[in-house]
Amino acid sequence: MRDPLHSHLDVVGGQLVDMSTLVATAVRSASAVLLERTPERAQAVIDGDSRVNAMQYTVEDRVTEIMTRHQPIAGDLRFMLGAIRMTTDLERMGDMAVHIAKIAQRDGTACAVPAARPVYEAMAAVADRVAAKTTRILLSRDVLDAAQFDLDDDEMDAQFARLMALIGDDWPHGAEAAVDVAMLGRAYERFADHAVRIAHQIVYLVTGEVHLDRP
Amino acid sequence: MRDPLHSHLDVVGGQLVDMSTLVATAVRSASAVLLERTPERAQAVIDGDSRVNAMQYTVEDRVTEIMTRHQPIAGDLRFMLGAIRMTTDLERMGDMAVHIAKIAQRDGTACAVPAARPVYEAMAAVADRVAAKTTRILLSRDVLDAAQFDLDDDEMDAQFARLMALIGDDWPHGAEAAVDVAMLGRAYERFADHAVRIAHQIVYLVTGEVHLDRP
Repeated sequence: MRDPLHSHLDVVGGQLVDMSTLVATAVRSASAVLLERTPERAQAVIDGDSRVNAMQYTVEDRVTEIMTRHQPIAGDLRFMLGAIRMTTDLERMGDMAVHIAKIAQRDGTACAVPAARPVYEAMAAVADRVAAKTTRILLSRDVLDAAQFDLDDDEMDAQFARLMALIGDDWPHGAEAAVDVAMLGRAYERFADHAVRIAHQIVYLVTGEVHLDRP
Repeated sequence: MRDPLHSHLDVVGGQLVDMSTLVATAVRSASAVLLERTPERAQAVIDGDSRVNAMQYTVEDRVTEIMTRHQPIAGDLRFMLGAIRMTTDLERMGDMAVHIAKIAQRDGTACAVPAARPVYEAMAAVADRVAAKTTRILLSRDVLDAAQFDLDDDEMDAQFARLMALIGDDWPHGAEAAVDVAMLGRAYERFADHAVRIAHQIVYLVTGEVHLDRP
């Protein structure tokens, strides 16, 4: 049986997994608003985000309580501090899903640019993948898995560059659509950036190794 | 004289102030790249950001050490956890300054849009103001001062809306410039958002009151 401190740490770990699961659903729904042109689904993403935000405080309260009662040290302490940081990234991932859903809900033009569609599809696929992997490494704390995130991030960056390359002098869809296309791309790219930060945090928790070149 | 724990907390407080001071300089320089068309100044902003990133780890290491040695509780513990969060926001504010400097360095077109210039000037002024106020409230922990940040944030949002309103069907500067104008505006807006989060964190540290509607 787990001692009381580690039972409490398990609860915090579970809350991070729950946040990550909500965020994965949110980005999947946001991509559906964009790709399936279902603006009516945007509101669920927006409403769901307040749950993610509230969970950030739940985790922080729990961490404060555990620290006060059990005064963890070394690896346990590092995990608690890492949990605070990771909730910040998870909360921002939720915000990015909302951002995607809101642009897609508002603007049919950016969504309908034919050349952008395959890029959106690729970005949505990477976002789905990193969201699922984030949940997985929060459960497993597998350093080798966590180290793979940089590859996904590279792919997301490449897709973002591909999207931005569409917007040039011969762009025929108007300035507003260009801005929305860029903002959609940037939201996906930042979604992956935050996932990478979580992965680096997991590596740090397990190995003590620090990444100074954060995304 | 301060006891050892509180002397250590003062050091962490001082490190947050140092980070905030660096960030204030960074955004001021980034605005100069944009407004004075001095692309050669961008590199200093980019180079300076690695110092800000490194300080985030310095604070985290110090917090871990203090927690291990002194096991702070209640308000002191809350301050430590808040410090971890606030370094994340300060680090992102540094990133936004880099983002502004890089776009301004690369692209003369977006910088030279005549109608955008007064908006950039207004945004740069708000960014300067919130950066200076961030340093101030990190020193004073004055809740009334911290509560004022929402007004600055409202002004930044209004300027951002004004900037985006320029980009319409009759935009004559091309799609690429439109995207850069929007990205510049968004970077300023996010800079202020992170400052507001720090202000809310200060309010929380002092009063225990939580803002669920984060920017």
